[in-house]
Amino acid sequence: MTPTFTLGLDYGTNSVRALIVRCADGKEIASSVVNYPSGHQGVLLDPRDHNLARQAPGDYLFGLIKAVKGALVQAKKQRGFDAKRIIGVGVDTTGSSPIPVDAKNVPLAMQKKWAKSLNAQCWLWKDHTGWREAARITELAAQHRPQFIAKCGNTYSSEWFWSKIWHCLQVDAKVFAAAYSWVELADWVPSVLAGVTDPRAIKRGVCMAGHKALYAEDWGGLPDKEFLALLDPKLADLRDRLYDQAHDASEAAGTLSDEWAKKLGLTAGIPIAMGEMDVHYGAIGCGVAEGTIVKVIGTSTCDCGVVSAAKAVPDIPGICGIVKGAILPGFYGIEAGQSAVGDIFKWYVEGVLGDAKLHAKLTAEAAKLKPGQSGLLALDWNNGNRTILVDQRLTGLLVGQTLYTTPAEIYRALIEATAFGARAIIERIKEYGVPVDRVVCAGGIAEKNPLLMQIYADITGCTMLVAGSSQACALGAAIGAAVLAGAHPDFPTAQKKMTSLKKVAYKPKAAARKTYDRLYALYRQLHDSLGGRNPNADLGGVMKELLALKEAVR
Amino acid sequence: MTPTFTLGLDYGTNSVRALIVRCADGKEIASSVVNYPSGHQGVLLDPRDHNLARQAPGDYLFGLIKAVKGALVQAKKQRGFDAKRIIGVGVDTTGSSPIPVDAKNVPLAMQKKWAKSLNAQCWLWKDHTGWREAARITELAAQHRPQFIAKCGNTYSSEWFWSKIWHCLQVDAKVFAAAYSWVELADWVPSVLAGVTDPRAIKRGVCMAGHKALYAEDWGGLPDKEFLALLDPKLADLRDRLYDQAHDASEAAGTLSDEWAKKLGLTAGIPIAMGEMDVHYGAIGCGVAEGTIVKVIGTSTCDCGVVSAAKAVPDIPGICGIVKGAILPGFYGIEAGQSAVGDIFKWYVEGVLGDAKLHAKLTAEAAKLKPGQSGLLALDWNNGNRTILVDQRLTGLLVGQTLYTTPAEIYRALIEATAFGARAIIERIKEYGVPVDRVVCAGGIAEKNPLLMQIYADITGCTMLVAGSSQACALGAAIGAAVLAGAHPDFPTAQKKMTSLKKVAYKPKAAARKTYDRLYALYRQLHDSLGGRNPNADLGGVMKELLALKEAVR
Repeated sequence: MTPTFTLGLDYGTNSVRALIVRCADGKEIASSVVNYPSGHQGVLLDPRDHNLARQAPGDYLFGLIKAVKGALVQAKKQRGFDAKRIIGVGVDTTGSSPIPVDAKNVPLAMQKKWAKSLNAQCWLWKDHTGWREAARITELAAQHRPQFIAKCGNTYSSEWFWSKIWHCLQVDAKVFAAAYSWVELADWVPSVLAGVTDPRAIKRGVCMAGHKALYAEDWGGLPDKEFLALLDPKLADLRDRLYDQAHDASEAAGTLSDEWAKKLGLTAGIPIAMGEMDVHYGAIGCGVAEGTIVKVIGTSTCDCGVVSAAKAVPDIPGICGIVKGAILPGFYGIEAGQSAVGDIFKWYVEGVLGDAKLHAKLTAEAAKLKPGQSGLLALDWNNGNRTILVDQRLTGLLVGQTLYTTPAEIYRALIEATAFGARAIIERIKEYGVPVDRVVCAGGIAEKNPLLMQIYADITGCTMLVAGSSQACALGAAIGAAVLAGAHPDFPTAQKKMTSLKKVAYKPKAAARKTYDRLYALYRQLHDSLGGRNPNADLGGVMKELLALKEAVR
Repeated sequence: MTPTFTLGLDYGTNSVRALIVRCADGKEIASSVVNYPSGHQGVLLDPRDHNLARQAPGDYLFGLIKAVKGALVQAKKQRGFDAKRIIGVGVDTTGSSPIPVDAKNVPLAMQKKWAKSLNAQCWLWKDHTGWREAARITELAAQHRPQFIAKCGNTYSSEWFWSKIWHCLQVDAKVFAAAYSWVELADWVPSVLAGVTDPRAIKRGVCMAGHKALYAEDWGGLPDKEFLALLDPKLADLRDRLYDQAHDASEAAGTLSDEWAKKLGLTAGIPIAMGEMDVHYGAIGCGVAEGTIVKVIGTSTCDCGVVSAAKAVPDIPGICGIVKGAILPGFYGIEAGQSAVGDIFKWYVEGVLGDAKLHAKLTAEAAKLKPGQSGLLALDWNNGNRTILVDQRLTGLLVGQTLYTTPAEIYRALIEATAFGARAIIERIKEYGVPVDRVVCAGGIAEKNPLLMQIYADITGCTMLVAGSSQACALGAAIGAAVLAGAHPDFPTAQKKMTSLKKVAYKPKAAARKTYDRLYALYRQLHDSLGGRNPNADLGGVMKELLALKEAVR
């Protein structure tokens, strides 16, 4: 049988990856990464406002062509490969990363007039400039449409679609007026590949729509115009230029246009999978199924789970999103996350200690410490808390410092803090009846940091498995394309054939768990008090218990 | 008129200083510092227990001889000086730093048998191994003798006399049994100079007795035997081998013995002033008087004030000590303090960032920041809280970190934290009717760090003055000797002649005060909650207010 292949395109925060995968067994035969050329590591920043993070849409096309060509050059060295045997393309991206486009689906930022305007660029997922708007949307929804936010933890985020667009309207009416429509990056890339030149004709994915734009079939799609008019009548008008229906991964976003087939050296007419959020395709690439939580641990962490759409899924307070069809067709997709994980370690090592080379040294020293030994406890909120507090207006905290506290102790405390945050998410999901039997981790940190993985196992009490692929998101996008192209009858079959686990498994250790249970109780005291969930907090014992634990360990 | 001089000996944590001062005008004509040769910077540590801090008594005599000789060599270069014109000696030391001695007033540690025993050394002021005993003493006193602790903030400290001796009894009965008596370093050095070879004959100062050993005329001296027996009957027995009466600085501790006159090259028979705690003589050297608070800002900070003994002084909750005659004869001495100040900056720069040279760079960068701009807030408890919580079992805290927080922002937040701690002390003293019209600061930090001084002015709302002498403690001891030797009729006159202020004065700035008032309110929320004084704390607004302040400033 002649082998077939699919192409997965993974648009990350700093770079885009092209991955060519064999449909039969998921073998990754070629991969190429291209860094976005603009801004600081691909991100456009504003030194006056640390909430701002934008991206130049031109970088997406530049990276697309270069990455695909790079992967093809590599793939062609393999026996049995031929670019003609690529039978589908899948795309995953960061999100919510909406792009203002004109009536021809061209980003404003790619036009000379707007090239230098930060507000005309793609509003990258981690842009928090719309935090005031997010709070107002939460307020208005609570009052007028509680169902809208019940499925996203009762809090609408500053990272999401409407917060960003409304903020643009507030601070830059000209850009807002010039934008015919706004398109999520995950929808925009497939639409470009398919040659769609009318924003109304773009097939939009339910993943972004449901998780970021308050879309649900239950209330007829996007928020109604009456509600949007409460925000601003111009947003109600915009609704007509967005979309009525969003689709899950069982449908194609389109087929590859002649123009782009030529540009990329692929076959015109092959299916393009529906765009999904990077971690959602990542979850598929990690073998997500009922009972399995997939954690993609990187600069931030995203947690994904699925529950059969045949069942009733309760609203889970603080969980960012429960959306039908968002990850796998036929399932509710559950998404949660931590706004910063690797970013916290990076900040501490590079931003505070000022030497990126210290990561290895600190990891080695931190590995020698026992749970509780440092006497430290941290909150992992340097970039706010996505789940379970859904509050960007939170910050980091470190407690327990003495005059002898070492850099490695602080490093370990920060790792532990992110693990406590991970535990809070798993516990919240389980509390509401969603089973968590397996945790599969992906991302560079999961593969390269055994210390962190063991701490996660000890703190959450779950065995931590590691995904077989280092490029799970791109792999998941390729799986989506393979299913669409008919290489496999359905997602579960495709996942079974195309995904794997690494041999290593991190199992919780009883002694560590005991100490960490005590530390987690203290973490929750701080979490609930400083997170605004306990207006009667008695924190008088926190420092003393940390000291007692430290002494007990020594 | 032939000029006369006195010698001030200042025993610090790491070194001893000898200062020769002209009685007429306080001119410091010679000074010599000798580092203690033993341990880590003069301190004997135990890597297994960070609470432990001891000191080798032999170092005190080694340093004494070397420092005095060094000062004399220098002084002899001055016209008009002659060692015979030194008419008195004064001694100040750290405290409570009790030394176990045998029946001949020889420290156990200076005997071969005990030379290597950590428990046989001087128990340095910052030794906290007796924290459990301190808590028990507090408990027992509250139950049986509330008056004992009413004057020391209702909490007996682990740094003090009885906690340390009782802890020795608990952990090393042999050393306890071998010790005929225990002598504070401040009493022991004068007793050695005076040739006293019977611990019962040592004239003990009321400063250490009153502040550290629960001594007061009101209840007949040291705690009664019945109370001490509640701790341990052996402590009740020890009382007979301590002292019945303690004395203020109006009396001499003795006169210089022939032996030590010869060793040091001084005149036998000159008076030796009563030993006092370093900062108490420091307060005298800074011109302490009613209405003036003296802050000696160093590794830790000590605050001293005086109130006429003719007035009734209330008990002030959380103030470490109010002792009649402790600083100036005829006045109540009020002492408060912060367990770590310079030590916190040192820990952060050297212990965390790992480069002592960064102090200057961070100070320069921190000086460019506005109040509130960092969004950070810290608690200054890395070494516990002496005043106003009187609780060693507290630790540091930092809140407000983002992914962009810089080392200089943290540095400034730590300075601000110590200033907030200083404000809490001043406000507490004022609340109880003790006027604070002037603040005079001494110590290396006060002289060399204008940024810190301005922050202290802005946060406390007090003008910060700087003492004229860089060696205020030794100067104060020399003043004590000058008064005793008859060079001046009384302390106020001697202080007027022999002390001065530097020209610089740091005045509070209105705009900064406004921001700092808001930050101080947040500091007190954290302080009261984590310090165990508010079991119903609503901290849900702290991070948000810090962010709001940060944004308002930018």
